[in-house]
Amino acid sequence: MCESCGCGDPHLVSVDVHDRILSENERQAAHNREHFGAAGVFALNLMGSPGAGKTAILEATARRLAGRRKLGAIAGDLATDHDAARLEREGVPSRSITTGNACHLDAAMVHHALHHMAWDALDYLFIENVGNLVCPAVYDLGEHLNVVALSVTEGEDKPLKYPVMFKKADLVLVTKIDLLPHLPGISVDVIWDALQRVMPKPTMLTFSAVTGEGVDEWIHWLESRRDAISAAVQNS
Amino acid sequence: MCESCGCGDPHLVSVDVHDRILSENERQAAHNREHFGAAGVFALNLMGSPGAGKTAILEATARRLAGRRKLGAIAGDLATDHDAARLEREGVPSRSITTGNACHLDAAMVHHALHHMAWDALDYLFIENVGNLVCPAVYDLGEHLNVVALSVTEGEDKPLKYPVMFKKADLVLVTKIDLLPHLPGISVDVIWDALQRVMPKPTMLTFSAVTGEGVDEWIHWLESRRDAISAAVQNS
Repeated sequence: MCESCGCGDPHLVSVDVHDRILSENERQAAHNREHFGAAGVFALNLMGSPGAGKTAILEATARRLAGRRKLGAIAGDLATDHDAARLEREGVPSRSITTGNACHLDAAMVHHALHHMAWDALDYLFIENVGNLVCPAVYDLGEHLNVVALSVTEGEDKPLKYPVMFKKADLVLVTKIDLLPHLPGISVDVIWDALQRVMPKPTMLTFSAVTGEGVDEWIHWLESRRDAISAAVQNS
Repeated sequence: MCESCGCGDPHLVSVDVHDRILSENERQAAHNREHFGAAGVFALNLMGSPGAGKTAILEATARRLAGRRKLGAIAGDLATDHDAARLEREGVPSRSITTGNACHLDAAMVHHALHHMAWDALDYLFIENVGNLVCPAVYDLGEHLNVVALSVTEGEDKPLKYPVMFKKADLVLVTKIDLLPHLPGISVDVIWDALQRVMPKPTMLTFSAVTGEGVDEWIHWLESRRDAISAAVQNS
């Protein structure tokens, strides 16, 4: 019944409407991607459930890259600008998108936000999507890479239960790893096994914004992917 | 852009399409509700983020009401029948709805599931919705009451960031309360304050499936609400 947002069955909305919406989004996403490519901005779409720790990841990233890279962020939520405000406090120029009832960002929302920020001088643009393990997976925003935050508190079977999201992920950050000793039923090995079943190229890092575990590895992944994509753009 | 599922902006999908989908769902939900009323089945729609502990709530409920009440469940997920299988192991006859890409259950899916289970002899029908703090809030399933599970690990500001869901809730169960000592930044008072700002009739219980905290209060709330609704039906 949500076919028009790409996340439903087609009983009531025609295939035409569905295709029109997604193809319009693809067109806009390609336009965004052209902008990012021309300006040398590395754009990353960060997704995950509500409370998976997306903003905490970006706060830790901002502290680690301060003075080395120019960061900017777009943060989506149904209501409030809490996440953008948190990132601003870490020195990251941020733009909030409040979606009202919408369960995801789309390429047009991102494009609109770009018009209100000095994005083209950035090294990284982090797009923190609406907290949702379903709908954001369907919408290309023009990003270079997709990262999914999955908290250990969410349980081990989420990759199997929400495969659409994990199929799209270039990297899964297993967050709140510091809570693992208090979750006797949860095993990172089982999460990794589930990810291997659904991700085309399974890639996982464990992460804690509290203890700093995994932050080095995350920054290394981020910088190496940015270098690889920059090199590919220059050679094309 | 998700207006056809009630969770988006209307730029690309016409108001007509949106209204048609939601009014068709309302019609089907009313039909489900008539069924439940005629059979004396108390139907409850349990919503919350992925990993908020919805299935654990129902497992604890099953253990507490075993032998006293006849329970049944419908469990929605994009993929897998894990939740229904867990509930079956607790002796609750359960039907799984795998939604594919859909971010929520709708009244027609529930009606279809009813045709495959002996629902009309139940005291309680628990409908465990897809893990999602946005879309399920928009779709009436014919339930008598809506309960939202919110884990303490999700953070304090979720009611403010996802108000649509919490506006619809008759009760919020703040789950995984046993983890609170390990979450120094989180306060139940702040969660309660946020709920009071968005819920029409703020009602909250703290809950732990691990320690059993709050299970008595939850069962008391459940039974008293069922009694009240049964009395209202008999007097109407």
